[in-house]
Amino acid sequence: MRVLGVDPGSSATGFGLIEREGRRVRHVTHGILRPPVGADLSVRLNFLHSRLSELLKEFEPEVAVVEQVFIASNPRSALVLGQARGALLAALGQADVRVAELAARQAKKAITGSGAADKAQMQLMVTKLLSLEKQPPTDAADALALALSYANAGALADLPIRGRQRNHRRAMTKALAARAVSSGTHGAGKTETPS
Amino acid sequence: MRVLGVDPGSSATGFGLIEREGRRVRHVTHGILRPPVGADLSVRLNFLHSRLSELLKEFEPEVAVVEQVFIASNPRSALVLGQARGALLAALGQADVRVAELAARQAKKAITGSGAADKAQMQLMVTKLLSLEKQPPTDAADALALALSYANAGALADLPIRGRQRNHRRAMTKALAARAVSSGTHGAGKTETPS
Repeated sequence: MRVLGVDPGSSATGFGLIEREGRRVRHVTHGILRPPVGADLSVRLNFLHSRLSELLKEFEPEVAVVEQVFIASNPRSALVLGQARGALLAALGQADVRVAELAARQAKKAITGSGAADKAQMQLMVTKLLSLEKQPPTDAADALALALSYANAGALADLPIRGRQRNHRRAMTKALAARAVSSGTHGAGKTETPS
Repeated sequence: MRVLGVDPGSSATGFGLIEREGRRVRHVTHGILRPPVGADLSVRLNFLHSRLSELLKEFEPEVAVVEQVFIASNPRSALVLGQARGALLAALGQADVRVAELAARQAKKAITGSGAADKAQMQLMVTKLLSLEKQPPTDAADALALALSYANAGALADLPIRGRQRNHRRAMTKALAARAVSSGTHGAGKTETPS
């Protein structure tokens, strides 16, 4: 099973792809999508849409785990983040990829044992868990952590990962099972035009 | 010149297309995009993206006028609206259509003479100005009003539309000139992956 983590952002969207076979989890790729600085908003949003579409075609993940947004304090930043999410989610819908949403806090807890882990701790743990030679940049590390949390959730209790308590794993498994969203609904929608 | 007005919304996105030749403005089409109710978010957002893409291919507008968002009071609704806008703007970027943003208040002022006009007044004026046989639904009327405001802005002072004062027209012309956004910037952006 290939799982793509996506950490949406209007100027930097992190992505991270892992593959799970049985109990083995393998790193496939990761990176950051950076829309052209100073370009029009529609060009920047199409950049996110089209680059993610290319990644989906190349790597064919079964699931995409997108960072969930909690109610932001600032409506302006919620709008800007929403626009990036909209372009990215539309690309996932187009490619018919199953989408799950996971809060950053849950991924932090699953990966480090603490929902309050900082960026550096997350980078370190992701690097260790995936046996990477080099630490990924923070946005990509967050995306890899989302993918890893999801991929591990199914058999999380079995995985030989140190530094986490069994009850964290149980909570994660439960939370993720509740959140996994099927993509079965393909109602037609409507385009209303005057007859 | 073909101008498409777009009034983004997550459950109903209005669109309205008009054509301007010299001083004549002609109605081409209008309607509402309604994503399938109950479908996954990614499917709904892809519905907006792909249906707008189809409209852009069919009608080839030179400019799209998208309703501008003022800072919403509620971050949650800003996020939801942002997602719809993101999917729609990405489609406009993909089709390389020039995008202008216009506030609802400005369109209301341009069409009715008052920035505080209600939905019914807007429907009535749009129906009159475009000589439509039937009133368009409110979301589509708002989209037509956006397109009409933009198309008229260039020669607004010349147009024989009653019920508006010349200074409203001057203000609109000025506001629109300042807002018209060129789509010339096509910087490459970056996809960072580890070497």
